[in-house]
Amino acid sequence: MARLSLNEIEQLSQDILQRHGFSPAQVQAVADTVVAGQRDECHSHGLYRLLGCIDTLKAGKVVPNAKPVPHDRAPAIVLVDAGGGFAPLAFRTGLPLLIDKASQQGLAALMINHCVHFSALWVEIEQLTEAGLVALACNPSHAWVAPAGGRLPVFGTNPIAFGWPRPGKAPYIFDFATSAIARGDIELHRRDGVPIPTGWGVDGEGRASNDAATVLDKGAMLPFGGHKGSALATMIELIAGPMIDDFTSAESLEWDAGCQALPYHGELILAFDPRRFLGDRTESSLQRAEMLFDSIAEQGARLPSQRRYQARMRSQAEGVEIPDALHEDLKALLR
Amino acid sequence: MARLSLNEIEQLSQDILQRHGFSPAQVQAVADTVVAGQRDECHSHGLYRLLGCIDTLKAGKVVPNAKPVPHDRAPAIVLVDAGGGFAPLAFRTGLPLLIDKASQQGLAALMINHCVHFSALWVEIEQLTEAGLVALACNPSHAWVAPAGGRLPVFGTNPIAFGWPRPGKAPYIFDFATSAIARGDIELHRRDGVPIPTGWGVDGEGRASNDAATVLDKGAMLPFGGHKGSALATMIELIAGPMIDDFTSAESLEWDAGCQALPYHGELILAFDPRRFLGDRTESSLQRAEMLFDSIAEQGARLPSQRRYQARMRSQAEGVEIPDALHEDLKALLR
Repeated sequence: MARLSLNEIEQLSQDILQRHGFSPAQVQAVADTVVAGQRDECHSHGLYRLLGCIDTLKAGKVVPNAKPVPHDRAPAIVLVDAGGGFAPLAFRTGLPLLIDKASQQGLAALMINHCVHFSALWVEIEQLTEAGLVALACNPSHAWVAPAGGRLPVFGTNPIAFGWPRPGKAPYIFDFATSAIARGDIELHRRDGVPIPTGWGVDGEGRASNDAATVLDKGAMLPFGGHKGSALATMIELIAGPMIDDFTSAESLEWDAGCQALPYHGELILAFDPRRFLGDRTESSLQRAEMLFDSIAEQGARLPSQRRYQARMRSQAEGVEIPDALHEDLKALLR
Repeated sequence: MARLSLNEIEQLSQDILQRHGFSPAQVQAVADTVVAGQRDECHSHGLYRLLGCIDTLKAGKVVPNAKPVPHDRAPAIVLVDAGGGFAPLAFRTGLPLLIDKASQQGLAALMINHCVHFSALWVEIEQLTEAGLVALACNPSHAWVAPAGGRLPVFGTNPIAFGWPRPGKAPYIFDFATSAIARGDIELHRRDGVPIPTGWGVDGEGRASNDAATVLDKGAMLPFGGHKGSALATMIELIAGPMIDDFTSAESLEWDAGCQALPYHGELILAFDPRRFLGDRTESSLQRAEMLFDSIAEQGARLPSQRRYQARMRSQAEGVEIPDALHEDLKALLR
């Protein structure tokens, strides 16, 4: 394993992106997301993700110097056209406008269009909770997941993330895929020749399958939680697809045309200003929310964001370890 | 079984509510919800619910002549104080204001405070999709459900419902509890002395239990979908509890003080106007959404609202059947 400090991760990410022609603003926004992912030991969104990022560039599926353009769509809606670039700079462009609209109207939506998937949603959500807002975000991906009771892929892994600001504490944030499991986990089982658990996917006839290759190549992944997870995945397709004039997961996969690039889609981010809902009862209401968190944590159940915060403290103190092979692959991108 | 027409159901509901002192506006709003529930064969929200409704009144836990008061909270937020009455009249009071704000701002929230649980959320969602809006609603209930990995009840059965308008067709609507199963289903297993499936609940030590009485009296129900369902239930507690200055499920159960009345809580309803998101691309985007529904339905997977619409057509043509015992219990309420 190679050990790197957070500064070294940032520098390496910036160097790789710059070397491949990304504009300074794109470099900074993407590198910041990579550092956040690696720092919090969310490895799939850390340095590893840069490999897919450069593959996507080489496939001609991302615009390296895209300049996101914001539009004031409605009093409570800001639109940012990402122009075919990665999502983080588009989010950064829309963030102050979203915060402003949420505090003025009470709640507001940021619709990001024409962006290439990159960001972990929790990285974006955290920037809204830092502003004292409650936030919800979701996006489609590539159509890999069948509806409950079906056999053909319709949904993406369709993540949904939510954040709640906690006075004096790190925010409550969850961020999960609406598929039963990440596609990467099924790929690892295929590589290792290990059967997958029942419930992760079906074969081409819709029968439960424990064979990773069958699920990935001939069948489909399954949503989490049966018909309820399937309904949530449908909602995400709709509100972060047609409702914001952007691709569904099926349309993203069709646009990919076999390149295996990162998904191309829109993203919907909602922000709620608790001060506008609560007025002079904001502080006491946020305190009541703490009782909810306490009643979960005190019985030994996990609050979803805690693992990331522990990893963050470790990484800030000690740096992070990555496999030597990944380090070599990354350095090769600098040549 | 007794067969009743929809008109007879409406008349019976109105007579019972009036007989017990509900004001004319409350009678109409509650009766309309009962008729919708019974008509769509959502029996737990049909005539059966009137028994709990009158029990709640007798326990002194609902105000029969409450007059909901609307407040213009922020440009995108309308608040309706239900004044301790059942939810439907409060929703009816806020509906035109919510529609107006959503079409003006792009999206808007209706926060209902101090209402006694009554409504099925899909009945409310349908009134928003009829206005061409996309809608999302949720509420806490009584704390009966433990977080994933825990053993003590924290969450309610916390329903979440979503609706999408389909041009020329009945809307896409889902409405599900974030518990693995309805509490009523576990009660039926207890009554019949039948073990419950693994995954519905835990005993007081957090171990999986197949005994209905243990889960209901000493342990806790479980959320659907493991830690993901648990996270959603947490979100609903927060955004339809402290964010709108109303009770969490734990606070609702505490307020109940053993009366076993219907939950007392707030409700959050979000409405999005697709025309403000999409402008002149509204029609083409709604057509693209139809491709998503087709790709689900054509492979034989279920769209969540279809069963209700089939029941509705049947009920409108033939009326509905209810058990004689229920019919007698209802008629007894008229004496």
